[in-house]
Amino acid sequence: MLSEAQYFSAEYLDNFCLEVFKYFGVGDADARQAADVLLRSDLRGIDSHGVARLHTYVEMLELGRINPQPKIKIVRENSSVATVDGDNGLGLVVGPKANEIAMDKAEKHGSGWVSVCNTNHFGIAGYYPLQALQRDLIGWAMTNTTKLVAPLWGAERMLGTNPIAIAFPGYKEPPIVIDMATSAVAYGKIEIALRKEEPVPKGWIIDKEGRNTSKPQDMIDGGAQLPLGSDREMGGHKGYGLASMVDILCCVLSGANWGPFAPPFALRQEIPERSVGKGIGHFFGALQIDGFIDKADFKKQIDEWIKVFRNTRPAPGTSGPLIPGDPEREAEAIRGKEGIPLIQPVVDDLLDISKKTGIPFGPS
Amino acid sequence: MLSEAQYFSAEYLDNFCLEVFKYFGVGDADARQAADVLLRSDLRGIDSHGVARLHTYVEMLELGRINPQPKIKIVRENSSVATVDGDNGLGLVVGPKANEIAMDKAEKHGSGWVSVCNTNHFGIAGYYPLQALQRDLIGWAMTNTTKLVAPLWGAERMLGTNPIAIAFPGYKEPPIVIDMATSAVAYGKIEIALRKEEPVPKGWIIDKEGRNTSKPQDMIDGGAQLPLGSDREMGGHKGYGLASMVDILCCVLSGANWGPFAPPFALRQEIPERSVGKGIGHFFGALQIDGFIDKADFKKQIDEWIKVFRNTRPAPGTSGPLIPGDPEREAEAIRGKEGIPLIQPVVDDLLDISKKTGIPFGPS
Repeated sequence: MLSEAQYFSAEYLDNFCLEVFKYFGVGDADARQAADVLLRSDLRGIDSHGVARLHTYVEMLELGRINPQPKIKIVRENSSVATVDGDNGLGLVVGPKANEIAMDKAEKHGSGWVSVCNTNHFGIAGYYPLQALQRDLIGWAMTNTTKLVAPLWGAERMLGTNPIAIAFPGYKEPPIVIDMATSAVAYGKIEIALRKEEPVPKGWIIDKEGRNTSKPQDMIDGGAQLPLGSDREMGGHKGYGLASMVDILCCVLSGANWGPFAPPFALRQEIPERSVGKGIGHFFGALQIDGFIDKADFKKQIDEWIKVFRNTRPAPGTSGPLIPGDPEREAEAIRGKEGIPLIQPVVDDLLDISKKTGIPFGPS
Repeated sequence: MLSEAQYFSAEYLDNFCLEVFKYFGVGDADARQAADVLLRSDLRGIDSHGVARLHTYVEMLELGRINPQPKIKIVRENSSVATVDGDNGLGLVVGPKANEIAMDKAEKHGSGWVSVCNTNHFGIAGYYPLQALQRDLIGWAMTNTTKLVAPLWGAERMLGTNPIAIAFPGYKEPPIVIDMATSAVAYGKIEIALRKEEPVPKGWIIDKEGRNTSKPQDMIDGGAQLPLGSDREMGGHKGYGLASMVDILCCVLSGANWGPFAPPFALRQEIPERSVGKGIGHFFGALQIDGFIDKADFKKQIDEWIKVFRNTRPAPGTSGPLIPGDPEREAEAIRGKEGIPLIQPVVDDLLDISKKTGIPFGPS
């Protein structure tokens, strides 16, 4: 796939996204913020959540399904916690603001926890703890997403891929950044198999009757993804439990649409039969390290943790364990220099947006 | 196995544990607390973490490896966070006290987060969020444990089974209680296969060279368990990430022994080559629901969540998804009436303690 890719600098793409968001009525600062979240994803190698999704955001803005100028407000709070109503804004704008509230609270009260309703898709979960690292905090982020995953022993989609991200700062070593969906596998991998007409491993998906299948099309045709752990024997109840935790913290706690009622992110997705809240939900947390332990001591111990885990005896045929966040950081180092590779369908989408808006776009 | 079991009332066993802890110098209230944690485990059907472990606690107390009269103290804090030093007390005593600090903070500041060092095995993680439910809070608990699990692509034990528990209160429905190790499977299941001389499924364990194996003895002989997700394809990096998160929040944040340096819980386990902190670590959290949303609304919505998920279309050959906490609650209802079944080796252990201490024990 990479052989067909065209390369663009992050700056170029960032500027294009900025102008596009502005074109659709998003204010300057918010458009800059939204573009930053998208580009961070592309830089970190998570192609599925970057500019490849600009087209979807644009469609939703165009149809008035997302509010370009939300009045984001705190609807309830106590010193270390709050609920934020995102006024149906871009998650790429609401998320960073709610995360900032959590970080501000952490600096004052030792921790900050913000549940968010009435919001939309917020990009990569990992973006938010990366922001916390810049303020020397431990950051968490979770979000629900449109239904794709069956609970263990279920035959239908009831939960999103509901990711969890958390990051810990190192001293001289780079930070530990955990960013994981609670499904067995990312939806993007099923899409790739579909495009290549290849089977997928047992344990990733079920068909519309709830039967195991290796045909990606069976999942698309009313089937579902499986939770992390896949089946009872391998711990599928655990992935289901984690996805439920994310669903409740993000949605039931904030008053958003939980479980199968999460509104669709994209036009092609079905609209749920009923609404049980407002928009989708996020949950952000921040912990002030100094509230627990001397910050420098913590960071030095994280360095030691990283060294010890890098020295783990490798399993046969591998070069040993990675530290969570390694692959994304490596991608960022390369793409920061070489630019971001976009496959033709993504370039076509961006050209389409360019045509519609008059904002120039083209291979450099 | 159940056919050989002898039944004891929870009250009888609770009282025996209480007297045993007191015999080994634990104060009245602390002994009562420790016994309560053990019995809750037996009542909830988690046989591996209840009175079956009394013998191990006794050995550690007898040898002076656990302090029967710890002076538990807060060593650092900010309004919503704290670090507690457990003074090498029983985790069954230190855990509940630290959890209480988290809950008190949540009632005042909206949330409370307590990282604990210099502590020992704290029983089932699920005990602690159950306490939070009694105060209408959302409760979390995590702990590190003695090394058993290899990181993805590692060939040796580097992490514990590091469980995560969280619970959410319902209104008329029972609470949702998630309590899960971050390994693919509980160690107890490998022990059972070993005793029955049966193979275990691929993805549970590796041998001492880091190769997949189905022979439980290979894991015992210097092999390791695998993290939730097992291999790269099925998400083993996610289980490894979760176990790392637990390790860092419990240990690096509190100043306890992280990763492979966790001190052994039982005498038969090897002592790590070096110490990087004090004892093992726990992490407790509590969230005040009212800080986010009206508490009655939250609970009613949890009821609705439960109903919707119970109505999920079942996968073939199943009666549909459970709600997290269902199996433990069902066990508790049965065992509260019929008593707790103990297998002969556990009865023998308790008889041995009885002989040593003079505290009477025998089938009723």
